[in-house]
Amino acid sequence: MGRPDRPPRGRRGGAAARRHRHHGRVRGRPLPEAHRRHRPHVRRHRHGAGRVSRAGPGLRGSAGRSAGQRGQRTHMTTAADTPGIVECGRPEEDVRGFRRALGHFATGVTIITAQCEGHLAGMTANSFSSVSLDPPLVLWSIDKGSHSLSLFEQATCFAVNVLAADQLELAGRFARSGADKFAGVGWHPGLGGAPCLPGASATFECRKHSVIDAGDHFILLGKVERYQRADRDPLLFAHGRFALSVDYPVIAREAASPATSTSDQPTMLGLLWDAFTGMSHGFQAERDALGLSVSQGRVLSLIERYPGAGPELVARKAYVSPQGLEDAVQALVAAGFLTVNRNGCWNLTVSGREHVALRRKRAAATEASQLKAFSAAELEATCKVLRALGSEVPVASSGPAT
Amino acid sequence: MGRPDRPPRGRRGGAAARRHRHHGRVRGRPLPEAHRRHRPHVRRHRHGAGRVSRAGPGLRGSAGRSAGQRGQRTHMTTAADTPGIVECGRPEEDVRGFRRALGHFATGVTIITAQCEGHLAGMTANSFSSVSLDPPLVLWSIDKGSHSLSLFEQATCFAVNVLAADQLELAGRFARSGADKFAGVGWHPGLGGAPCLPGASATFECRKHSVIDAGDHFILLGKVERYQRADRDPLLFAHGRFALSVDYPVIAREAASPATSTSDQPTMLGLLWDAFTGMSHGFQAERDALGLSVSQGRVLSLIERYPGAGPELVARKAYVSPQGLEDAVQALVAAGFLTVNRNGCWNLTVSGREHVALRRKRAAATEASQLKAFSAAELEATCKVLRALGSEVPVASSGPAT
Repeated sequence: MGRPDRPPRGRRGGAAARRHRHHGRVRGRPLPEAHRRHRPHVRRHRHGAGRVSRAGPGLRGSAGRSAGQRGQRTHMTTAADTPGIVECGRPEEDVRGFRRALGHFATGVTIITAQCEGHLAGMTANSFSSVSLDPPLVLWSIDKGSHSLSLFEQATCFAVNVLAADQLELAGRFARSGADKFAGVGWHPGLGGAPCLPGASATFECRKHSVIDAGDHFILLGKVERYQRADRDPLLFAHGRFALSVDYPVIAREAASPATSTSDQPTMLGLLWDAFTGMSHGFQAERDALGLSVSQGRVLSLIERYPGAGPELVARKAYVSPQGLEDAVQALVAAGFLTVNRNGCWNLTVSGREHVALRRKRAAATEASQLKAFSAAELEATCKVLRALGSEVPVASSGPAT
Repeated sequence: MGRPDRPPRGRRGGAAARRHRHHGRVRGRPLPEAHRRHRPHVRRHRHGAGRVSRAGPGLRGSAGRSAGQRGQRTHMTTAADTPGIVECGRPEEDVRGFRRALGHFATGVTIITAQCEGHLAGMTANSFSSVSLDPPLVLWSIDKGSHSLSLFEQATCFAVNVLAADQLELAGRFARSGADKFAGVGWHPGLGGAPCLPGASATFECRKHSVIDAGDHFILLGKVERYQRADRDPLLFAHGRFALSVDYPVIAREAASPATSTSDQPTMLGLLWDAFTGMSHGFQAERDALGLSVSQGRVLSLIERYPGAGPELVARKAYVSPQGLEDAVQALVAAGFLTVNRNGCWNLTVSGREHVALRRKRAAATEASQLKAFSAAELEATCKVLRALGSEVPVASSGPAT
């Protein structure tokens, strides 16, 4: 119940992942992620000779291809000037690092459900992908070790519920093993009885098409018999954290400006976006300087706020996946900031408390420095305007209160 | 070249899609999407009898499953109270609607590359998905009609380049067929010579593992031999448009507040987010009232600004995929707002120009109404503060200028 090692894609990790976790916790003490970030280990194999800064002119002009250097056979090189590389390697050697890299591909979040002989299964997954339009096929992957595997094997149908931005609680509930995940959820049966969840951004009712053996997972292909979509913003998952999608910033600005405007005067909406992004980056830079990732910082602050908290509370309050939480905790324990007590809950060490105090001091200093150029009257007017504009936020977009 | 019907997932649509497009353009005049949104067609088959508002108590308490109504066999029902449904149906009957529903699952954006006998292939795809950790497997899908198919079939390796937020131009370039997509891109060869693109958020160098026939696409599985990740925010694709990811809002607020704060006083960062979201929703409500989707409104405004513009310019400036653009244009033509000239470029009709003028007037009125409660001095102070905070935005986050 409440396994902390179940990632949101609905798998508990393969044999290698389990071996690795064991190794990481008991036999080794790996550096926390943030420490590695400041000492990036980038292999520069055959650099220079192997690097092609620009593809040659097309030898064949056919669409969709272009000819580069003929006979190019240099393997495993890394351009020295690729900016901001924080980690690289071979998956077999660091499965956690591999998973962190996979987290750079952002996804939506789904709950996939099925019903067989009156029994229900449902699991949070982000491995959904559309495949074909004719016939309409989609796929997702299920861990061979999943408790729900046999039900999905037996069921002839499944439903893909694409979650909306305000369905974060459901995402967390179906990512854990639990007695009755469907309790209190007003679902209705779709094709083959598979539960369709209310409030989803989209739903795909599928007949199972085929099952493909793929490493420690099975890929399930489904033929979509029926789709449905609602006017709801999607929930996102990126870097092990839940997130929201916003339109590309220039567009937000253009949407608010007259189409024939020749003025360079930004609109209020554009100013708000730029100010939000600018301040966020200030805090991010300060966090980076203190050597913790976003998730690690959140987890540390939450355990200071709720001493003795366990995985479920912290994952929910920090908006990280169970797997993202496990990664963060491992790093914080290795850094000496956290201790694990007998029942698997956490407390800060003295240096953990000192680090939180330092972060708090630096955050206050950062905000003060960002705002120091303004008079009290200017800040008061700004807060008044922002508060009034913000009062128009619909409930579904403002996120659950903590 | 520059095919407008190529979606970002690197497929040109199956036979049914092509048939459907033909039907939609020539034989039928479907309602624009926005018109349908105001007359949602929701099938309520066997409603009431078939609806289960709450799963029954667990008959088996085993983890990962719970027992619901036994023998539940009701198919294709839809809960009447599911909020905000705008479209539903069977994929065979409306492939565009199906594709719109698929767009509700947000994804990152990748460029997948390969090299074979000195020839290069690269295509924008969002069908990437991680599959297995041990062995490390990932997958993506390629249209059987793709120009690049034979090269990907022959190559033994491919590289998955996960794009960062500022790589929108690359995403557009590799989504189209073109003479030399790699010209001027400082790539370097990875495993098997597959081009690794600089500035990517993550890269996976893969050896081809297997190919699965799946409808109008092939699924390519690759074994990841090497991964790399950089400290760069990901580019997103959702609802046919490019987008950015932001942290779940409550977190942005907590990140900026002292960990032990007992005050309910929101921070400046929280105020900025709420104000941005509040204003955005005001504009969204106004757009909805005028009966155009976000993409349709953008396309209309851009063609007013650039009369006679063609697909490439408009897709780039509107931050929509070629497929999203085609959908929007079809709806705007059907609504009588656009005409297509001989060389496939567009101009507004009289009613199109009138609609743009109306939108402009309403947008100005919306902003004026949102700001009317404040004095000139308050607005001046607010703009001064926002402008200063926004000046700290790093270039990579502010998006390309239009």
